[in-house]
Amino acid sequence: MPQCTCPHTKADSLPTDPSQMVSVEINGKRNGHTNGTTNGANGHSTPRDQQRRNPYAPRASDFLSNISNFSIIESTLREGEQFANAFFDTKTKIAIAKALDAFGVEYIELTSPAASEQSRADCEAICKLGLKAKILTHIRCHMDDARIAVETGVDGVDVVIGTSSFLREFSHGKDMTYITKTAIEVINFVKSKGIEVRFSSEDSFRSDLVDLLSIYQTVDKIGVNRVGIADTVGCANPRQVYDLVRTLRGVVGCDIEIHLHNDTGMAIANAYTALEAGATHIDTSVLGIGERVGITPLGGLVACLYAANPEYVKAKYNLPMLREIENLVAEAVEVNIPFMNPITGYCAFTHKAGIHAKAILNNPSTYEILKPEDFGLTRYVSIGHRLTGWNAVKSRVEQLGLKLTDDEIKDATAKIKELADVRTQSMDDVDSLLRVYHSGIQSGELEVGQKEALDRLLKAHRESQLGDNESASAPVPVVAAA
Amino acid sequence: MPQCTCPHTKADSLPTDPSQMVSVEINGKRNGHTNGTTNGANGHSTPRDQQRRNPYAPRASDFLSNISNFSIIESTLREGEQFANAFFDTKTKIAIAKALDAFGVEYIELTSPAASEQSRADCEAICKLGLKAKILTHIRCHMDDARIAVETGVDGVDVVIGTSSFLREFSHGKDMTYITKTAIEVINFVKSKGIEVRFSSEDSFRSDLVDLLSIYQTVDKIGVNRVGIADTVGCANPRQVYDLVRTLRGVVGCDIEIHLHNDTGMAIANAYTALEAGATHIDTSVLGIGERVGITPLGGLVACLYAANPEYVKAKYNLPMLREIENLVAEAVEVNIPFMNPITGYCAFTHKAGIHAKAILNNPSTYEILKPEDFGLTRYVSIGHRLTGWNAVKSRVEQLGLKLTDDEIKDATAKIKELADVRTQSMDDVDSLLRVYHSGIQSGELEVGQKEALDRLLKAHRESQLGDNESASAPVPVVAAA
Repeated sequence: MPQCTCPHTKADSLPTDPSQMVSVEINGKRNGHTNGTTNGANGHSTPRDQQRRNPYAPRASDFLSNISNFSIIESTLREGEQFANAFFDTKTKIAIAKALDAFGVEYIELTSPAASEQSRADCEAICKLGLKAKILTHIRCHMDDARIAVETGVDGVDVVIGTSSFLREFSHGKDMTYITKTAIEVINFVKSKGIEVRFSSEDSFRSDLVDLLSIYQTVDKIGVNRVGIADTVGCANPRQVYDLVRTLRGVVGCDIEIHLHNDTGMAIANAYTALEAGATHIDTSVLGIGERVGITPLGGLVACLYAANPEYVKAKYNLPMLREIENLVAEAVEVNIPFMNPITGYCAFTHKAGIHAKAILNNPSTYEILKPEDFGLTRYVSIGHRLTGWNAVKSRVEQLGLKLTDDEIKDATAKIKELADVRTQSMDDVDSLLRVYHSGIQSGELEVGQKEALDRLLKAHRESQLGDNESASAPVPVVAAA
Repeated sequence: MPQCTCPHTKADSLPTDPSQMVSVEINGKRNGHTNGTTNGANGHSTPRDQQRRNPYAPRASDFLSNISNFSIIESTLREGEQFANAFFDTKTKIAIAKALDAFGVEYIELTSPAASEQSRADCEAICKLGLKAKILTHIRCHMDDARIAVETGVDGVDVVIGTSSFLREFSHGKDMTYITKTAIEVINFVKSKGIEVRFSSEDSFRSDLVDLLSIYQTVDKIGVNRVGIADTVGCANPRQVYDLVRTLRGVVGCDIEIHLHNDTGMAIANAYTALEAGATHIDTSVLGIGERVGITPLGGLVACLYAANPEYVKAKYNLPMLREIENLVAEAVEVNIPFMNPITGYCAFTHKAGIHAKAILNNPSTYEILKPEDFGLTRYVSIGHRLTGWNAVKSRVEQLGLKLTDDEIKDATAKIKELADVRTQSMDDVDSLLRVYHSGIQSGELEVGQKEALDRLLKAHRESQLGDNESASAPVPVVAAA
């Protein structure tokens, strides 16, 4: 077995005798703490509150930061519809909308009702659900679209404009920004219906900065609720995002939304950094599905914001629902949850069979950052999963001190996988099964390949467990829930 | 069909008559370009070089940036061994090492030879391969480990130390930094063998900053090639990474390596930002496999660095090999390539059937950022993939203007999926098949379910294509390559 990832010099292997230590002068500078408060055995004072501070929390100096003050605009039913495999029928859209609402996202965005009669009907149907979340949609800058949209009952409308075509045609280098009468008409019309108006553009990181800021300054003055920028090609990097959002933050008074594609895998980090810079709304989709590799995934975003401020995020969202929502959408679009998905991926909390998580973290002031229990998950599922390999089971067999041949282990593994197809097995489940299998082999009641004999032994074991302990921890196969 | 993602006000729908425009004063400020160089029809001068500038390129003001000057330390055979499903035998390790070398990574890191006899033997075997890449391994700060390691033939050794236990025990608030005689002995011993020495620690973002900088300053003075920091819990954010690396950059003269876990999905972005701050070496693994959700994935990192400086990355690495390497490792650890994997994921370059990628990018100064051809890939594979649904095929049928019933479409889809099991079909392949199918139906030569008739028609079509055009573009099924 390969060694633990980053072996340390253990504290007890350091010499206790200073004569074993060598001093190295570093330009006459002092090292370590210099406040001379204590001279305890370790020569340092380490205030308890310093040990408990979350190193991933937003920095006090980031007075613009909205890491603990943001909203999610969930766009599975708009951006997600652009995903190669997405063909949501009305029933599925409603199921997804309800699940997202139960999770707690502040906004749910839908495909434009002007796109097709079906889109319009679905938009209306979802608006009628009476969800807590606000329902949004988007339209071209056109009164026909606006009229259709407001009639569906949405709570907000996004008017999307073209940055490059906006000013260049008409500004003539004067002191004024020209804006189409239509745009004003659309904005005012939507506002007159008492619903939110957003203005957004595309490909912001490749747009002329001056054009972009002019447009947003203009619409801010006219009175929109929010402006939106987008990394359409999915290649922006975090500091670039920070700079643009921060700059925009100083130009408009309204909210700032950001839509980030994930072609280079940086969408979560870009979203985080955008919030640090003062953005207020982040577009997401479940598993990030959308055009090409999609956008900021809901789960990944929630994970990093939870790391920064777990209490805020736990209060805002129903975290244990995350897995259920991802399974719902994954099934609808026929993809597998990526094995390395934050939080809900196959191996998010797994380690090689038997290695306790804490053994990895040697820092004595450790506290867990990502607590699987907060997401309704447990650790150590790697060998109770249908993807389990017999080698992983063999490691566990060895750790339990049981003696089984490779054939016996493969046989037991097949049973584990079969049970795991119904419900992922916990480490306890697997340990029980291995012990029962081992006893069966030892006593002669069981041989390799004897499925019925094994089932009998497992059943007898469960019944004796239920007799001993009325708790629900016995490995009874149930139809897989979330 | 849902509408294209972000519809714009099209240029030709803007009013040509200024009386249709309304001026909005913005605090008397000027908007748009003010250099008054031209007064062409659009009122702006837009220098051609400005249009062609890569907006994702490293910034000139980032004089620390190593975005175009870095090395990859590929750790599939060290961090990757910690992945839940990883049980590499020697043959597989050698295959992976050779593939990584052919790809062009500068370093390949292996599990400590002191971990087990097998690890030692494998380390030796890989060192004997004569690869271009430098072979590295890591050890505890112990002479026994060091002796084993240097005998294997590695080009470099990483000595891992515990940050928290290092200084606190012994510094006593003096002007000196105490360091164990053993550490000096180990470093000097390794250096005496003419190989690289790195010093790294774990959980850097939760370590006392002063301790950390003291240690690194000390070992830098003693003379190591490189120091390494790590985000062990995978929760660090980009600006936090930037700050720590930049600070360290000002303290040590040696190289700086960073090891980033991916629990909150930010490892790629953190790696990118670390390079901007002056890091020189990034640890990766293929598909990011490693402990829990692993570390910075090789493919994702290469994607974002390619976006920043494509010529540099293309010259450095054999990009078309990426897919092959990912398939090799995915198979070895029994996972699927995530559907949204940058570059090589199922949908990385796909759009809804038939929508040309450029339709998405409305910015007139567009140029492709991620070119699939540079990675040996093509676009539009969504309907030529074995995961294709008949709905996707139906969309394409409609776009081609062909008339087929749903049953006929499902029948054609079955044939596409069958061909795609052998080799993913291009859009041309699919279009050909649909046209042949449609002709067959129209002419009465074909009915639903007539597999042999369809095969005959397809064969005849291919032969006529080869007759017309000797190129290899005819959809001849071949055994799937990379």
